[in-house]
Amino acid sequence: MGNIINGKEIAKCLKNDIRKFAEDKKNQGSRVPCLATITVGQDGGSIYYVNSQIKLCKDLGLEPKHFSLDESITEEELINLIEKLNNDKSIDGIMLQLPLPKHIHEKEVSSKINHKKDIDGLTDINLGRFYKGEKAFVPCTANSALELIKNTGVKIQGKRVVVLGRSNIVGKPSAQLLLNENATVTICHSKTENLKEVCKEADILVVAIGRPQSVGKDYIKEGAVVIDVGTSSVNGKITGDVIFDEVLEIASFVSPVPGGVGSMTTTLLMNNLCEAFKENVY
Amino acid sequence: MGNIINGKEIAKCLKNDIRKFAEDKKNQGSRVPCLATITVGQDGGSIYYVNSQIKLCKDLGLEPKHFSLDESITEEELINLIEKLNNDKSIDGIMLQLPLPKHIHEKEVSSKINHKKDIDGLTDINLGRFYKGEKAFVPCTANSALELIKNTGVKIQGKRVVVLGRSNIVGKPSAQLLLNENATVTICHSKTENLKEVCKEADILVVAIGRPQSVGKDYIKEGAVVIDVGTSSVNGKITGDVIFDEVLEIASFVSPVPGGVGSMTTTLLMNNLCEAFKENVY
Repeated sequence: MGNIINGKEIAKCLKNDIRKFAEDKKNQGSRVPCLATITVGQDGGSIYYVNSQIKLCKDLGLEPKHFSLDESITEEELINLIEKLNNDKSIDGIMLQLPLPKHIHEKEVSSKINHKKDIDGLTDINLGRFYKGEKAFVPCTANSALELIKNTGVKIQGKRVVVLGRSNIVGKPSAQLLLNENATVTICHSKTENLKEVCKEADILVVAIGRPQSVGKDYIKEGAVVIDVGTSSVNGKITGDVIFDEVLEIASFVSPVPGGVGSMTTTLLMNNLCEAFKENVY
Repeated sequence: MGNIINGKEIAKCLKNDIRKFAEDKKNQGSRVPCLATITVGQDGGSIYYVNSQIKLCKDLGLEPKHFSLDESITEEELINLIEKLNNDKSIDGIMLQLPLPKHIHEKEVSSKINHKKDIDGLTDINLGRFYKGEKAFVPCTANSALELIKNTGVKIQGKRVVVLGRSNIVGKPSAQLLLNENATVTICHSKTENLKEVCKEADILVVAIGRPQSVGKDYIKEGAVVIDVGTSSVNGKITGDVIFDEVLEIASFVSPVPGGVGSMTTTLLMNNLCEAFKENVY
């Protein structure tokens, strides 16, 4: 019987560190890290996410500044706002909530965010630097998967890691992060032959395919660490890709959904904000 | 006994295509693709490479423009030249030969090349786009490895590929290119445990570690395709990473050194130049 990885508990430690950092800044008479969030229109998902970001920001003693724009805004006006925020020394990070209305070119506009304030790690420059192994902001979900693995205390260097899924925001960056930790990394996907056998080679398995309850014990090597990044909504309930109970019987560690990877992501975003602040201020 | 992959022959076909493209442009009264090459100082390697680029350029009916700068040039002057070439509509590709003299920040200066003219695929923006699976210029050595594999006719999709080495210009982009072809890709490196066993899983093995004659038959699965990207100089002779004769006994295809990957790279650079031309002109 394996151990359940407690994402909330790990996030709590990081939250305390961030809170302490913000307090210290305040006590030193300095400003605290400031996050600019932008929403365009009334997309329900965007508003939910931005509200949780603002709430966590305040809770940690950081400063949120929200810009709620009308759906009818032009691309030029939105770019002007981003450029204003890029040049504003009192703003450390910029989060543009996606999706944007159809008349705005999402890629075009996102790419305008200064890479030094792109704390979600989505600009081409940040991605390029990340893949070269240089200092860069990393997409938070991938980073969260890595943090949960590190927290188990299991050795990563030299071990076989299999990442199931190759999305730009989870699969590929998770593989890169684990390669940076000197793991031997294999990326699997829908076209992989003998998928179960390949997954069974993994000392550490990261599952990010978005197919709920699709990875059972026949994918798992005994004693493996299993990180479930899946978050599908099934009958209104957030559900992971891994069949938790049966995998837990074989694995050494399994991250649950909810309570695993997702519990860390917004906190890691705030941690990136503090990193951007350090670069911006000093 | 396996087949020897003939890089020169494959390059020849691509050269003919490029020559035909340039001829067609000329016949249509259009200008031909133009490559700007820049050398700073008298580094022997740089001069050797730039001369071979210029020679091939002319041979294919493309236009080379060479800028030979004095070692004492300032960073600002070099950046000014790059920006002039960026804005020059008659220039399609820019190759800045590295290394640069020590007083010039290589990364800083390279990043100034407009990503649309960065036919060597080294700017952060190009890399970021490439890793997202978007249209981008790809480092030519990695691309050469892929072309040699494709030329064997062996199925790539779903197959196990092992890339041995994780450099930014060969290992990582080769892995990404093969992932784009729907292979199941594993990246190995100096910290990999049980290296021989992992390599033996490969239907296709790409070796790029730069340790001459270090990969013998005990790394090879019977019938595998083996691509040798190693180019070390041993007693003045270019030598690959693979022990060619013994690996050829087991593999289905092996690329030799010289005559393999290296025979394609400059031609692929010229192919990128033609792609840049198409984007620039139309």
